[in-house]
Amino acid sequence: MLRTNTCGELRKEHLGEVVTLCGWVQRLRDKGGMVWIDLRDRYGITQLVFEEGVTDKKIIEESKKAGREDVISITGEVVKRVASNDKLQTGEIEVRVSELQYLNRAKLPPFLIDDETDGGEELRMKYRYLDLRRNPVRKSIEFRNKLMQQTRSYLSGQDFIEVETPVLIKSTPEGARDFVVPSRMNPGEFYALPQSPQTFKQLLMVSGFDRYFQLVKCFRDEDLRADRQPEFTQIDCEMSFVERQDVLDMFEGLVRNLFKGLLGLEIEKFPVMSYDDAMKNYGSDKPDVRFDMKFTELNDLVQGKGFNVFDQAELVVGIKATGCGDYTRKQLDELTDFVRRPQVGAKGMVYLKCNADGTFKSSVDKFYSPAQLQDWANAFDGQAGDLILILAGEHASTRNALNVLRLHMGDQLDLRKKDVFKPLWIVDFPLLEWDEESQRYHAMHHPFTSPNPDDMEMLNSDPGSVRANAYDMVINGVEIGGGSIRIHDRKLQEQMFKALGFSESEAEAQFGFLMEAFQFGAPPHGGIAFGLDRLCAVFSGQESIRDFIAFPKNTSGRDVMINSPSPISAQQLNELSIQTNLK
Amino acid sequence: MLRTNTCGELRKEHLGEVVTLCGWVQRLRDKGGMVWIDLRDRYGITQLVFEEGVTDKKIIEESKKAGREDVISITGEVVKRVASNDKLQTGEIEVRVSELQYLNRAKLPPFLIDDETDGGEELRMKYRYLDLRRNPVRKSIEFRNKLMQQTRSYLSGQDFIEVETPVLIKSTPEGARDFVVPSRMNPGEFYALPQSPQTFKQLLMVSGFDRYFQLVKCFRDEDLRADRQPEFTQIDCEMSFVERQDVLDMFEGLVRNLFKGLLGLEIEKFPVMSYDDAMKNYGSDKPDVRFDMKFTELNDLVQGKGFNVFDQAELVVGIKATGCGDYTRKQLDELTDFVRRPQVGAKGMVYLKCNADGTFKSSVDKFYSPAQLQDWANAFDGQAGDLILILAGEHASTRNALNVLRLHMGDQLDLRKKDVFKPLWIVDFPLLEWDEESQRYHAMHHPFTSPNPDDMEMLNSDPGSVRANAYDMVINGVEIGGGSIRIHDRKLQEQMFKALGFSESEAEAQFGFLMEAFQFGAPPHGGIAFGLDRLCAVFSGQESIRDFIAFPKNTSGRDVMINSPSPISAQQLNELSIQTNLK
Repeated sequence: MLRTNTCGELRKEHLGEVVTLCGWVQRLRDKGGMVWIDLRDRYGITQLVFEEGVTDKKIIEESKKAGREDVISITGEVVKRVASNDKLQTGEIEVRVSELQYLNRAKLPPFLIDDETDGGEELRMKYRYLDLRRNPVRKSIEFRNKLMQQTRSYLSGQDFIEVETPVLIKSTPEGARDFVVPSRMNPGEFYALPQSPQTFKQLLMVSGFDRYFQLVKCFRDEDLRADRQPEFTQIDCEMSFVERQDVLDMFEGLVRNLFKGLLGLEIEKFPVMSYDDAMKNYGSDKPDVRFDMKFTELNDLVQGKGFNVFDQAELVVGIKATGCGDYTRKQLDELTDFVRRPQVGAKGMVYLKCNADGTFKSSVDKFYSPAQLQDWANAFDGQAGDLILILAGEHASTRNALNVLRLHMGDQLDLRKKDVFKPLWIVDFPLLEWDEESQRYHAMHHPFTSPNPDDMEMLNSDPGSVRANAYDMVINGVEIGGGSIRIHDRKLQEQMFKALGFSESEAEAQFGFLMEAFQFGAPPHGGIAFGLDRLCAVFSGQESIRDFIAFPKNTSGRDVMINSPSPISAQQLNELSIQTNLK
Repeated sequence: MLRTNTCGELRKEHLGEVVTLCGWVQRLRDKGGMVWIDLRDRYGITQLVFEEGVTDKKIIEESKKAGREDVISITGEVVKRVASNDKLQTGEIEVRVSELQYLNRAKLPPFLIDDETDGGEELRMKYRYLDLRRNPVRKSIEFRNKLMQQTRSYLSGQDFIEVETPVLIKSTPEGARDFVVPSRMNPGEFYALPQSPQTFKQLLMVSGFDRYFQLVKCFRDEDLRADRQPEFTQIDCEMSFVERQDVLDMFEGLVRNLFKGLLGLEIEKFPVMSYDDAMKNYGSDKPDVRFDMKFTELNDLVQGKGFNVFDQAELVVGIKATGCGDYTRKQLDELTDFVRRPQVGAKGMVYLKCNADGTFKSSVDKFYSPAQLQDWANAFDGQAGDLILILAGEHASTRNALNVLRLHMGDQLDLRKKDVFKPLWIVDFPLLEWDEESQRYHAMHHPFTSPNPDDMEMLNSDPGSVRANAYDMVINGVEIGGGSIRIHDRKLQEQMFKALGFSESEAEAQFGFLMEAFQFGAPPHGGIAFGLDRLCAVFSGQESIRDFIAFPKNTSGRDVMINSPSPISAQQLNELSIQTNLK
């Protein structure tokens, strides 16, 4: 090794030892007769000292040439610091340098390699290898590694086997858009990159592997919203001979183990909430339950009193912001503007202030008597000093807008603490969603999800009402995983494809291998997949997954560091039997 | 859970317990009044018993309908077996069934689910999920999982961080052919799938990650020879501030740890052999050193004596097969035929038998005196009863042919034991190979490999003689890993690209990002990558990697189970701005 120790390692015990360190120059202080260099590596920072009368003159001169991010190697004696630095692990010592070598000089970096950098997003992505030197980014990548290793260790301890499934698979029109790979050896044919290893993990259950997991790259060629990546990593799991509760127990166990191991937190048993309750009480299938502020429906109380907006609304629904009764006109106008933004989409907002003196003030009090307003307040259990915010309109969009307002109020009232974690399970999703555009049902989860056994009979008569035997894990308003008990019976799978509008031959061409496999002894099975990138971000209290991915792509799917994608040669195109077709 | 126990779990301690098991029907024996079923899952086999007078009649009738591979659930009491079966972990008990449920019926499988199956290769690949039920295949996949987890655990213990590098990267013409992925959002442009994460792991070193590893899928669009897969998995590693010996020590440590943990074997320190010595003594850069049988060169002894074939040969070289002096004419003819096969490519073979009576018999004894033949024998330290086999011709092809013959003799003499492991390092490879076709040098390893520091000056004057600072790990004649100390200096990297015939603008376009990164403080670094599939096979004494891959492709790159690759829709092609171009 070119070093005897790392820059995070030396302590008082090492005093008197002669050591060799390698690392990057973080900082140089030159006081003429004394020079200090902070030497950095992944493990920490060690202070180097060069002193006139002690250090060779030439070496002092050399040390003064050190620029930020130069890579150097030094040898010297570990000595006690005059004033120790509590902020550094190595703060009790410094190294009195007797040899200095520049291993590689560095140009001035285009942005500060510091916790708070002056580099903009684009610059940091172009020089991602420099951005990765910054503490917060490096720590995010280290955190991801810890989470991955602990996940593997936990699941291995539960008899799960990690099996790698293929990356070059087959394109299927169901679901999101596939990335495809032209096959040179099979001209005119294409592989697809997996959106998930779904069918393969089910086949592994048919094979009897019983408990499978994989940390696996998946791919979706979607228009990228901020914070979505074309390639992402799943913790993909499947188990045989299980019912829903078994899967919930197992993976609640995993996530609680991760909380304990990574954050030192004991998390209590996860509540289980139905999709219907989540939508009714929070207007979202991924409610943030760090705070209460449940929805209260007001149709019965407010309709038929002459206020046209409420009378014509499918739904009148509100939330109570405790202690916000003193909001000013300006604050209330801001909230109204907030809900009117196109992303939220409400037409307006009605408020009800519960004044300290027991009276009420509302934006619509000309339509309602004080007694009626009292009834509203009672519906929310509103006390003096509370504020009630009400939206009205079409069911789904109103619930959705109120959900956004609720989260916004949660932020304003600091009810969404980064160090508080409230996981829960959402269950009993609808199996199918009606798609107006294609005039057919889509699988809400995917076509392999089993219907709830109690609803099996409605699959032909009333498919839209059938509940899925599916579940999502939600933490702090973020869906971090989802899964289902799968269909393991050929007939039911055929029925499902039919409900989704597949012809028999389409179903056969795309998933014939799976349906055939079901005929050779497929066990009952179910599973789950977690978004690893998202899980890391949620555990770290971060909104963005970007820093948990070493080399992310931008929203055009471009890696600006290596400048990819890029044109390929005519010879490559020719060998692959394709040509580009630019409009 | 649909079961209380697995089929591999029940022992004498469980006698009297009422248990529920799920699994596959391995075997049914119906003796009229008594029925036995062997119930199988991943964990083992448990014998079920149905007995007239004890078991409900209906259940006995039901049990008789059980077909091979049906999935059933049973409940019953654990009872002692009359005659225990030592071959089964559960052989002391059986379960007296009181409830029986068919969870899924199975069609008759197209081949026997047994250690020795009657299914041909093609059928087993089409029904891979059934092939995976067979013990040897399941165990191979389980072995791979163990090897993966132990590798991660060892490297994590050595401060290595697992970092995922991107799968959608950029195509570069250097090396093998890339698989490419058309970008929908960037029409006319393509991603490539990585042949290895080489440049990314080097960038991670520039980032200061210090020790990186990843178990990672890699892709090469090569014409597939038997036992090569278009996608394969590497154990990919890189370290900073290291010299060659540090890398060898670290990864010898890993592999010895795997031998110990997976096979219970203590392996002694790996010998280090130069490429030149390997080629000279074994005619191969991946010698199988489980047996000696080194090459002996005979040019001085045999040339100029009137035997034209030897006189005109660049190289006359042989091996000694100890104790094979009694080979018959037929055996010797078979060996001659063997070396003449086009895959071996020798023109003929000369033998020398050291007879028991001290005389010699050779195929060319009319050209050589008994004394001369004695000199030959002496060169090999040949004793009475030994056989010497000699090839002659052009240097490289003759060494190669003799290597093949040596391995063949090793097999014949049973010197290549499956349970003996002889790893070694091969070092000092040539940096560059001259390619006649393109009339330029190619990198023997890859263009990022550092020259041996001692040979640096020859890089311009005599590039063909420069040794690389590279190393391969070889076990039992199989290269299982290779790596190098990398270039970390922009100037040297430029010089290297120049030696490889890159123009400045080509080098910049393809690897500009890496060369720029070298200017921002790149540490000295080096690494290695192991072929995981191959490593599993070698550890298991298997020739083929196929069974260590859950869902392999055939030699046309086709997955015959899912029937991939396949045509995609006109809409997909259109969205991707490509069209097929079939000749």
